Amino acid sequence: MSDEMMQAAAIETPAEIGFAPDATMEEALAALMEQIMAVYSVSDDEGPLTDMVERFLRRQPHLTVRRHGDTLVASTDLGRERRVILCGHLDTVPVIDNFPPRWLESGDPAIRGEIAAAHPDERVMWGRGATDMKASDAALLYLAATLTEPKVDLTYVFYDHEEVVAEKNGLRKVVQAHPEWIQGDFAIIGEPTNCGIEGGCNGTMRFDVVSHGVAAHSARAWMGENAIHKAGEALARLNAYEPQAITVDGLEYREGLNATLISGGNGTNVIPDECRIHVNYRFAPDKDIRQAKALMMGADAGAELNNGEHTATGGVFEGFGIEMKDESPSARPGLDDPLAQSLVGLVRERTGREPVAKLGWTDVARFAALGIPAVNMGAGDPLLAHKHDEQVPESDLTLMAGILRDWLG
Amino acid sequence: MSDEMMQAAAIETPAEIGFAPDATMEEALAALMEQIMAVYSVSDDEGPLTDMVERFLRRQPHLTVRRHGDTLVASTDLGRERRVILCGHLDTVPVIDNFPPRWLESGDPAIRGEIAAAHPDERVMWGRGATDMKASDAALLYLAATLTEPKVDLTYVFYDHEEVVAEKNGLRKVVQAHPEWIQGDFAIIGEPTNCGIEGGCNGTMRFDVVSHGVAAHSARAWMGENAIHKAGEALARLNAYEPQAITVDGLEYREGLNATLISGGNGTNVIPDECRIHVNYRFAPDKDIRQAKALMMGADAGAELNNGEHTATGGVFEGFGIEMKDESPSARPGLDDPLAQSLVGLVRERTGREPVAKLGWTDVARFAALGIPAVNMGAGDPLLAHKHDEQVPESDLTLMAGILRDWLG
Repeated sequence: MSDEMMQAAAIETPAEIGFAPDATMEEALAALMEQIMAVYSVSDDEGPLTDMVERFLRRQPHLTVRRHGDTLVASTDLGRERRVILCGHLDTVPVIDNFPPRWLESGDPAIRGEIAAAHPDERVMWGRGATDMKASDAALLYLAATLTEPKVDLTYVFYDHEEVVAEKNGLRKVVQAHPEWIQGDFAIIGEPTNCGIEGGCNGTMRFDVVSHGVAAHSARAWMGENAIHKAGEALARLNAYEPQAITVDGLEYREGLNATLISGGNGTNVIPDECRIHVNYRFAPDKDIRQAKALMMGADAGAELNNGEHTATGGVFEGFGIEMKDESPSARPGLDDPLAQSLVGLVRERTGREPVAKLGWTDVARFAALGIPAVNMGAGDPLLAHKHDEQVPESDLTLMAGILRDWLG
Repeated sequence: MSDEMMQAAAIETPAEIGFAPDATMEEALAALMEQIMAVYSVSDDEGPLTDMVERFLRRQPHLTVRRHGDTLVASTDLGRERRVILCGHLDTVPVIDNFPPRWLESGDPAIRGEIAAAHPDERVMWGRGATDMKASDAALLYLAATLTEPKVDLTYVFYDHEEVVAEKNGLRKVVQAHPEWIQGDFAIIGEPTNCGIEGGCNGTMRFDVVSHGVAAHSARAWMGENAIHKAGEALARLNAYEPQAITVDGLEYREGLNATLISGGNGTNVIPDECRIHVNYRFAPDKDIRQAKALMMGADAGAELNNGEHTATGGVFEGFGIEMKDESPSARPGLDDPLAQSLVGLVRERTGREPVAKLGWTDVARFAALGIPAVNMGAGDPLLAHKHDEQVPESDLTLMAGILRDWLG
């Protein structure tokens, strides 16, 4: 640890989460951020932080709090016409010498150059989870305690296991176990976006394109059939394919069709009897999975997850064997809704940012599958997520909390 | 072990190799075959058999015997105009329940159907090395002892480590250490050919054809360059390539150009930054290695074994990276020589077989590199080499020894 790093004292683990009744929004956000940053919550170890957050939420008389595993769902029940869901995951990726957290005072050399330049006289919270996504969590906890009379009903979701395999994902589990807890007209997930709006997401599917041959000694190649040579045709089709950029609800989604892995052959002197090309198709939210599959392998190929190899009956890979490996739906941004449009206007006013399409697959797609439009919007720079020197300037918390307060309050 | 197999008693290991002075050719061959079959000589364990063969050869007053490692070179020095080299390897591939050997009497169910049909009233030697190539070794040992006044000078080579990696090959080593021991006008290697002549061989080279890209997340494929997609062009060229059949000295050699392995990619969601196609080129003896390489990668690409990746400046893979992995020269059959022609005539008369081109790479190419025409000709069915039930009918030994005796005697 460098001397510079030692200048700021590490923040100690709190007993409880909370803030003084007479605290300003800035003071309350700083207190909440300090407290939740100081509780270690790498995926699989969310329990202690979840317990504290649960006690904090249960102290708010206007909220009904439910818990499933390490996921908390807290709702207002004011009989409003519409309901907005606000989500934050409580887990972080593993620590890399960046826990416990610290406040870096203005001038501290550990503050990244671009942050110091944009926020010259400001404290910066440094440590694991600062941007992904405890800054947003702090803002949502502040709103949960203070927005007692919102214009719409609110459902807060604080969930576990976002940073690991999908099957552990707390949001996925609570939706499956208690679909009635997660209902609404619009959802925001607080993934870091510099407080901009990132809408919807591409769907993604992965599958093997398989070619078959007949093995033979390579000195008698004419006795065999070369499966790698046959794969050349599949690569030719990939090269001929022109990925599209597709506009959905005003946002542009760039598609992609790529071989990411290839393997084939059994020996240096053996004509190969099989070759597999692993293909990843990222498709825009104008298509559902069924439509996307039809474009790759024909509408009736029959290839599903874990059902083995099927011959493509049409599409890009017509005639090749297809083995499905993974599929996740796309999500429309849902920005045509007036409720969403008012958020878009507020974000434009406060940050100058227009909504953009989300490229990777995120939990917003889970809401899309429930028929609930969803966007990512959160404090902090997304490029710092998972980095060793994850950090967020203090004003990002007030920016995010302010936008949501003014939109919902 | 089946009951049938037990009917024939295993042959015991002999103390020495030899045959009675009054033995017929058939009796002498049977004795020698029994003896060398009964000495275990899997590659790396040729020592004991080499020692016995050395003592046997040193008992022949008309031979000068030299030894290098486990390779024996025994020569006549009669001042003849021409010299023929006769070679047999003493090692075998590993044993698979087929040692010690046995004579299978006529009617034994362990005799393979096609051998029983062709040799109904004949004993069959069963066990590891029967065809590859102790039957030929026995014939050569018989000739070494009995051809005291041949028409040409003779050099017998009994060598080790033919069945393993080239760097251990005893013939290669003795040629390198004592090139003056291995000189002559024509060479025969006793690899099993059913006593036909298999002439020359294709050369072979193996190399990686490498394409490079730039890694990126597959959700942002346009930030990268897909190395697997680039490899499609190399596969397209392989598919467009039409392998030739080329006639050399009257024998037809079929060439082949094949991808035998392919690999690329670093993860299912990563645009791959490298793809390697392992290519095997089998080229006819009208080309040397230099000419064959020029056809693949241009004359001045500079790719040599162990010198890393070089860009192909021409040829089939122009523009791709090339990393040489293996190269072995082709060998002309050398059947235009009158000495060879007289052997061709004798083989045709005794077996009805015309000479054919050898497809795989064999030790005849080592002689070609020394400027000595060479062919394979040996007792036994080549399709039984390395098999569990390797076996050879007794008359194959007399057929081979008879042809060589009458050609050389």
